[in-house]
Amino acid sequence: MAMPDRGRVPAATIQRLPIYLRCLLEAQAARRPVINSEGLAQMSGTNAAQVRKDLSHFGELGTRGVGYDVASLAGHLTRLLGIDERRRVAIVGYGRLGSALQSYPGFSERGFEVVAVFDTDPARIGAPAGDLLVRDVAELEPAVAEEAVDIVIITTPAEVAQDVADAAVAGGVRAILDLAPGLLEVREGVAIRYADLALELQILSFHLPTGRP
Amino acid sequence: MAMPDRGRVPAATIQRLPIYLRCLLEAQAARRPVINSEGLAQMSGTNAAQVRKDLSHFGELGTRGVGYDVASLAGHLTRLLGIDERRRVAIVGYGRLGSALQSYPGFSERGFEVVAVFDTDPARIGAPAGDLLVRDVAELEPAVAEEAVDIVIITTPAEVAQDVADAAVAGGVRAILDLAPGLLEVREGVAIRYADLALELQILSFHLPTGRP
Repeated sequence: MAMPDRGRVPAATIQRLPIYLRCLLEAQAARRPVINSEGLAQMSGTNAAQVRKDLSHFGELGTRGVGYDVASLAGHLTRLLGIDERRRVAIVGYGRLGSALQSYPGFSERGFEVVAVFDTDPARIGAPAGDLLVRDVAELEPAVAEEAVDIVIITTPAEVAQDVADAAVAGGVRAILDLAPGLLEVREGVAIRYADLALELQILSFHLPTGRP
Repeated sequence: MAMPDRGRVPAATIQRLPIYLRCLLEAQAARRPVINSEGLAQMSGTNAAQVRKDLSHFGELGTRGVGYDVASLAGHLTRLLGIDERRRVAIVGYGRLGSALQSYPGFSERGFEVVAVFDTDPARIGAPAGDLLVRDVAELEPAVAEEAVDIVIITTPAEVAQDVADAAVAGGVRAILDLAPGLLEVREGVAIRYADLALELQILSFHLPTGRP
């Protein structure tokens, strides 16, 4: 099972890996030992050629005419995604959204543990946050190393998101999920993903009829 | 200003429209009357040729050698995105995430109003939810028409997300934002976007080094 040069795997392929993994775990829960590319394509909303092409980046994972061993492929994708080890997450911005994400069961179920939360508001700093305490965002940079943070989630207002990203990167973070509106600049080698929910609503709105009766 | 056949605009172009709009509103706030495609590209993290190509789907919006009138283009994109009228949103799943989204200021600022919230939990149904009351998800289908809901946001567990989508579509909803893991089936003509935050973390995790010291 070859380990790929990660930089050369297309972004669209990487985005589909967690979807394939979820489908494989569903197949495993249904006690299905083997799945072919058609089956995996149907579960994941793509086509069989795409499945085969995506997985071909990672070596010979299936058997021609038979398919993929569900448990083995699930294990392989889990390792590829680096979620066989728990990933340590910090949340910056402990408003209602940040606080909801801290207790979001989907994170824990899929290998992510929130190990620190930060805010700028003196009224929030020091307050209990689940089994943590809210820390001052001024401590973010040193805390990244102290807490071995893998990923920072930003849920602050847009105006301060760049400063937060800068401090996180200065502290050594290599991956950021930004829920604030707007784009951030980070140095090469830092992975960033955006999840701007209002922007998603705007995209949906484009498809809606205009003008109410 | 031609109105395009919406079905023929590439999905990637549609996804960039709200980003361009945000950049234009920033330029407007900075009292910048005109912006050229290079300027807009730089603000939006793309390139000038892409900006020109994206906007060309919607007619002649700029002046060659001068650029785009910021206020006029912002207004045009606002109308294109259908957010010159307030869009009415229902949230299904009133746990911590659903409740945080109801009060998320980014929705209101960008033209979206939460007009109804639903849950299945008898302990939650009837409880105050901001200035609303949590309603029984069994009422979702008729409520879509009664409340003129444009977009349904699903924040339920994955197991019930398809049932929620089916009820929303049966009630007449044409756009869904799904925060639950997994893919949903909806009939043609219904727009759906996914924002699975744990999946975003998994994608980021792919880029992280594996094996702690």
